[in-house]
Amino acid sequence: MSTFELIIEILATLAFAASGLIAGLRKRLDAVGVCMVTGLTAFGGGTLRDVLLDRRPFFWVEQHYWLWVLLALSVAGIAFLRSRHIDWTERAIQIPDALGLALFSILGTRIASEAEQPVIVAILMGVISAIFGGVLRDIVCNDIPKAFSDHKPYAVFAFAGSSLYLLLDAWAVAPIASFALSFALVATLRLLAIQYDWEIPAWRP
Amino acid sequence: MSTFELIIEILATLAFAASGLIAGLRKRLDAVGVCMVTGLTAFGGGTLRDVLLDRRPFFWVEQHYWLWVLLALSVAGIAFLRSRHIDWTERAIQIPDALGLALFSILGTRIASEAEQPVIVAILMGVISAIFGGVLRDIVCNDIPKAFSDHKPYAVFAFAGSSLYLLLDAWAVAPIASFALSFALVATLRLLAIQYDWEIPAWRP
Amino acid sequence: MSTFELIIEILATLAFAASGLIAGLRKRLDAVGVCMVTGLTAFGGGTLRDVLLDRRPFFWVEQHYWLWVLLALSVAGIAFLRSRHIDWTERAIQIPDALGLALFSILGTRIASEAEQPVIVAILMGVISAIFGGVLRDIVCNDIPKAFSDHKPYAVFAFAGSSLYLLLDAWAVAPIASFALSFALVATLRLLAIQYDWEIPAWRP
Repeated sequence: MSTFELIIEILATLAFAASGLIAGLRKRLDAVGVCMVTGLTAFGGGTLRDVLLDRRPFFWVEQHYWLWVLLALSVAGIAFLRSRHIDWTERAIQIPDALGLALFSILGTRIASEAEQPVIVAILMGVISAIFGGVLRDIVCNDIPKAFSDHKPYAVFAFAGSSLYLLLDAWAVAPIASFALSFALVATLRLLAIQYDWEIPAWRP
Repeated sequence: MSTFELIIEILATLAFAASGLIAGLRKRLDAVGVCMVTGLTAFGGGTLRDVLLDRRPFFWVEQHYWLWVLLALSVAGIAFLRSRHIDWTERAIQIPDALGLALFSILGTRIASEAEQPVIVAILMGVISAIFGGVLRDIVCNDIPKAFSDHKPYAVFAFAGSSLYLLLDAWAVAPIASFALSFALVATLRLLAIQYDWEIPAWRP
Repeated sequence: MSTFELIIEILATLAFAASGLIAGLRKRLDAVGVCMVTGLTAFGGGTLRDVLLDRRPFFWVEQHYWLWVLLALSVAGIAFLRSRHIDWTERAIQIPDALGLALFSILGTRIASEAEQPVIVAILMGVISAIFGGVLRDIVCNDIPKAFSDHKPYAVFAFAGSSLYLLLDAWAVAPIASFALSFALVATLRLLAIQYDWEIPAWRP
């Protein structure tokens, strides 16, 4: 499982980084701003989770070569996207982003659960890991976070997948099977939501 | 005192949650966004205080049933407020909000003081506990924080009440009396400020 | 060196505080908001660094008289700047701000390096110490952070100076010499950038 998990984790971090890169370019940030927003989007959710759980070292300290990788990719992204249309890129990243949502939510829940956090806290840590990179990206870019306002189901799938993981875990299902099933649930729901343009109910006064 | 304190704490958390709920609905966030902003407003100030003081577990981890309560209330609030006017609600929450301001500021100061922080740091922790839930709410909603810009006295009363608490404590007044007097000071001043529409001086160039 | 370092640190904190004060006044915050933004700008970068490194006590807890000093200066600043033009002030603070950038970046890198963080993490901690006070100032003031979007070189000099410090340190250069050379590099580059209005490349679609 660990090779599979590593591949998904890399894809997921890259997808989140790409969404930060695109947001930074859209907002006309300078090169420094694009790099910072890219890193914040990729690592922000996991870092906030670890600060709340008082857990060290961070992922990006333990695997510090990733900071070089992200820096190189940001610079390459700025150069590459300079003369091309970024809409294509935005559609293209929806698949790895869905995988990232699935992986980070279940990983966050598992980490909190292993730290013996209560059920609702473990679920919340899954949701925070999965969405707060994007939330911090939008705050820095001076927008209302898309995860809170675009009426597309996103965090709810993280909530559902994290809950399923804990349920299976409580039933003593093998970790690899719990992980695979929860992952499949989140990724499938998210891809269906993108395909069929699902919306969550709006509040109207 | 602990029953009294618990009742006030519940009212205060609910008042802060309600202000987050209303802000989220006003900004047309989706259901996920409303729940997240509600929780951030209710728990944000105390969580930031605990991160700065390196104090675990958080209130919402120790009392984790509160996360379920807030989630249920957020969903109920979204359904209930869907077809009604929210201005009435906003006026109605000013009283528990004043109690919340009073309680959280003195509680924050007491916690910091018990952790042997210097006087000014203890006062600051009281102010942070009381106002940063609202500050984070406004940042996520993409507004300048009301506590910093609406020229209504709010944080200054937290500052005054926290100072009075530390002064009485230094004079060896019984904790319950120090608490009650400081609480009464903040709550009374805040309610008077609402009633008579007090303003703090503006800066004009 | 410690007297020299202390003088620069005081100048740097004051410069960062002044930029927060001016930003708060510009945004027409009330007196509470101006004081909070002033403190956030002065201490935000170092505090975020210390939270990430799990390092206590914070600078402003250990040297808590600084909170009184900043509070007094904020109130004095509000009174003084009430009737005067603040453009003069803004230009005047560029020199201590450049010194602050230099000092905080190298200090942050040294602290992280002493905590045995990897090279890229130590550099990043230098950059975070130097720029996140201003980033938090701009987020609270509801602007896109200037450090990410104004196309003026700022964080890149912190990156360069932090790198030079680690390089010299790895070559076993005496700490005082490493510090002085790195400090001189950042401060000189920043002052040249202001003088000659250097820009970092923009991304244009």
